[in-house]
Amino acid sequence: MSIDAQVLSAHQAWLEYRTWDRSKVVALLEAIADSLDGAKAELVPVAMAETNLPEPRLTGEVGRTTGQLRLMCAAVKDPSYLDITIDSADSTLTPPRPDLRMKTLPLGVVAVFGASNFPFAFGVAGGDTASALAAGCAVVIKVNPGHPEVSRLVAAKMIAAAKSVGAPDGLISIVEGVAEGMQLVKHPLVSAVAFTGSTHGGRALFDAVNQREVPVPFYGELGGLNPMFVTKAAATANAKAIAEGFVGSITMGAGQFCTKPGFLVVENADAIAAETQAFVFGAPGQKLLNPQIRERHDSIRQEMSSVPGMTLVAQNMHGEDTAVSVFRISAKDFLFHRKQAQREVFGPTAVIIDCASTAEYMEVAHSFTGTLASGIHGVENDSTIPTGLLSLLEQISGRIVWNQWPTGLAVTWAMQHGGPYPASTNSLFTSVGAKALLRFRRPVTYQNFPQELLAAELRDGSAELKSARVNGK
Amino acid sequence: MSIDAQVLSAHQAWLEYRTWDRSKVVALLEAIADSLDGAKAELVPVAMAETNLPEPRLTGEVGRTTGQLRLMCAAVKDPSYLDITIDSADSTLTPPRPDLRMKTLPLGVVAVFGASNFPFAFGVAGGDTASALAAGCAVVIKVNPGHPEVSRLVAAKMIAAAKSVGAPDGLISIVEGVAEGMQLVKHPLVSAVAFTGSTHGGRALFDAVNQREVPVPFYGELGGLNPMFVTKAAATANAKAIAEGFVGSITMGAGQFCTKPGFLVVENADAIAAETQAFVFGAPGQKLLNPQIRERHDSIRQEMSSVPGMTLVAQNMHGEDTAVSVFRISAKDFLFHRKQAQREVFGPTAVIIDCASTAEYMEVAHSFTGTLASGIHGVENDSTIPTGLLSLLEQISGRIVWNQWPTGLAVTWAMQHGGPYPASTNSLFTSVGAKALLRFRRPVTYQNFPQELLAAELRDGSAELKSARVNGK
Repeated sequence: MSIDAQVLSAHQAWLEYRTWDRSKVVALLEAIADSLDGAKAELVPVAMAETNLPEPRLTGEVGRTTGQLRLMCAAVKDPSYLDITIDSADSTLTPPRPDLRMKTLPLGVVAVFGASNFPFAFGVAGGDTASALAAGCAVVIKVNPGHPEVSRLVAAKMIAAAKSVGAPDGLISIVEGVAEGMQLVKHPLVSAVAFTGSTHGGRALFDAVNQREVPVPFYGELGGLNPMFVTKAAATANAKAIAEGFVGSITMGAGQFCTKPGFLVVENADAIAAETQAFVFGAPGQKLLNPQIRERHDSIRQEMSSVPGMTLVAQNMHGEDTAVSVFRISAKDFLFHRKQAQREVFGPTAVIIDCASTAEYMEVAHSFTGTLASGIHGVENDSTIPTGLLSLLEQISGRIVWNQWPTGLAVTWAMQHGGPYPASTNSLFTSVGAKALLRFRRPVTYQNFPQELLAAELRDGSAELKSARVNGK
Repeated sequence: MSIDAQVLSAHQAWLEYRTWDRSKVVALLEAIADSLDGAKAELVPVAMAETNLPEPRLTGEVGRTTGQLRLMCAAVKDPSYLDITIDSADSTLTPPRPDLRMKTLPLGVVAVFGASNFPFAFGVAGGDTASALAAGCAVVIKVNPGHPEVSRLVAAKMIAAAKSVGAPDGLISIVEGVAEGMQLVKHPLVSAVAFTGSTHGGRALFDAVNQREVPVPFYGELGGLNPMFVTKAAATANAKAIAEGFVGSITMGAGQFCTKPGFLVVENADAIAAETQAFVFGAPGQKLLNPQIRERHDSIRQEMSSVPGMTLVAQNMHGEDTAVSVFRISAKDFLFHRKQAQREVFGPTAVIIDCASTAEYMEVAHSFTGTLASGIHGVENDSTIPTGLLSLLEQISGRIVWNQWPTGLAVTWAMQHGGPYPASTNSLFTSVGAKALLRFRRPVTYQNFPQELLAAELRDGSAELKSARVNGK
């Protein structure tokens, strides 16, 4: 089927799906979750062969994926995403106020671009697909070329599950190929795009979407440098624990997480650097997703190592596997060579920035821009947090972590996964957690409508109205 | 001061303003509202001289403007815009869940572009400015060239009022000139842009913003065709009242409202067209905002009148004033010449589309794209509403009106002013009403934070937490 025919079919399916009761949407999401949970044994080996990721991780990731689908069920059962808001008619006002009833409606067909690093959780049945379906949208999913087989398999399970609850044909489908992806985001019947991947690829799609005759929302989650700041007190008191946590975090998923802390900023890094060595040497071998990603990692690591002033703290070697590498650079050199030094490395490589003074430390902090996460490691009632550091992190981050590490994302109501550009192309929304579905709905106000023409949830006395804002209250 | 210095000063002011308590923000908005209310007698004559708008309308518009500022006070007093969401730590989960506390934060410096048609309500102290300040942002406002004097005067009042409550210098400022406006939206320290104006001008700014190295949200409110659909039953039963309402609505503000119903779609339009004549002849003279706008209106009206099949229903003449013009075209001709016929005319000109069948009527309905508003005129329990019409209007509109007219916008909690492109560049938000401030805030999650480092409203036991979502409830 051509991309055009496929999007047309998705749009037709959407015209029916948009009228579904919320309970039917929940049934659809549950059917997909059940189907994937039941197919773990079939799915995991295919993903293992395509991604080099180990079995426990992939098995856990299927669970996370179906957990996301089930969290979306909870989000759809809760009427808050409808944002129901009522203002009653009031003829005593000047001008008289008509009856106004607002709720959100789904956008239409959503194009989803799956990521390489989470074949399930950010793949064809991942968070973007789950939240788009939950929002009442149809999805056309561009398969990540890193794991086409498991993507096709997951898609087949989803489509069968959707069929089993009576979903219209075309509601869920996949496309493959770079040119096909570009054709998809330019299609007039695509109403929104959700993307997880590289800044380079994301920006190209973002630009294409904005050049459409009719631009549509583009939700790109492009990664982050996720700098972590260690206070003077913590650098002394907790050097070993911080070194251990740091190495653990940068090797999680072989360093291929968008929340990997790429930089550890420390005022006098000697103690932490010394402790880091042992943990790097003790770290297991790292297998990157595929040869292309490994090649790119190795080449950027090589470039990083050539930045003037960059020295190796530690690097382990495990035969054919990719080494864990921690570099160290002085704040002065880092700031002077910022263009080469301040970049994301997709893989188990990170940098300790050693500051000779609090002034340098804050100058380094000021050099960072939009990031998914950032954080501070301190001690209790820490008096050594530089003034303005937290305020600065608030200005650049979607999430700020205290005495923990940014990897290992909780999928909850209070999660914000998305920060100022280049972390995301739209930092007003999250791509993870219950609120992710808000990206795919927009408000519509019904003015002076008779009860019988209103959707059931907007009628006087509906259950949903109980938790709604009525006349500003 | 250069644009660069001005934005820098706004950013510096914002760094202080973002730490203000909500009560101080409310005091600022109230001080501005009080100042403008007290200056009506000074402001209105200046606006009259620059815009041709009559005194009662402008006096009322100052009231609407200060009403918007006061609604923003209510929106800031209500903690819902903070979107506080908490998930407690839970070590029994796999992986263990950390304490997560989310709230929204202001974006930074907002560039506001004032509109020509509402010198106050969408001017320098208009809805975009009010909502950006309420959101905790600094504003740099590009003055509309149609009314520079009153804009400067309003800005001076605002700046003085802000100073009186201790606001930092630079929090509110204005710029003038097209090149200066373009420089403003490209400035790295501008964090969002709000625009009300033409599709042409808005798209140029939208494109410039998206070509920035760091793109930022662009909220463009670009207008609409706002088609109104009359059912068969209503066309017979209420021809006179509909004709009266239609002419009243297209002459409100001399037809220079973005919610003007540009098209009235009727199945058999004879009765309504006949009734329309008398109301057009009885309409008062129309004074457009300025000679440029008048010239453009006259030229587009001329082009509309030349569309094959377009006939004049009625046109009044009032000496030097602009005529009210209602045209009529068959659905067949409209659809065939859609490119020339389906356009927005800024001024008191509108078109009745006469459909020979329900099939034609629905074909015309399908030809419309994104619009701020649309509507249906019907009778009680109307059995003549074509199947699918309401669903179609939901897909293209921000607001749908029943048996009323889209002009005369209520500024409330339940108002949605913003629809799919080209009505708006971001239809997920409204530019009018209490929720307009949500455009200028983004969520940040604090993970595992000690109480003393959290903002007061996120701490255990805060007043704001009472209405917040905690652990999904």
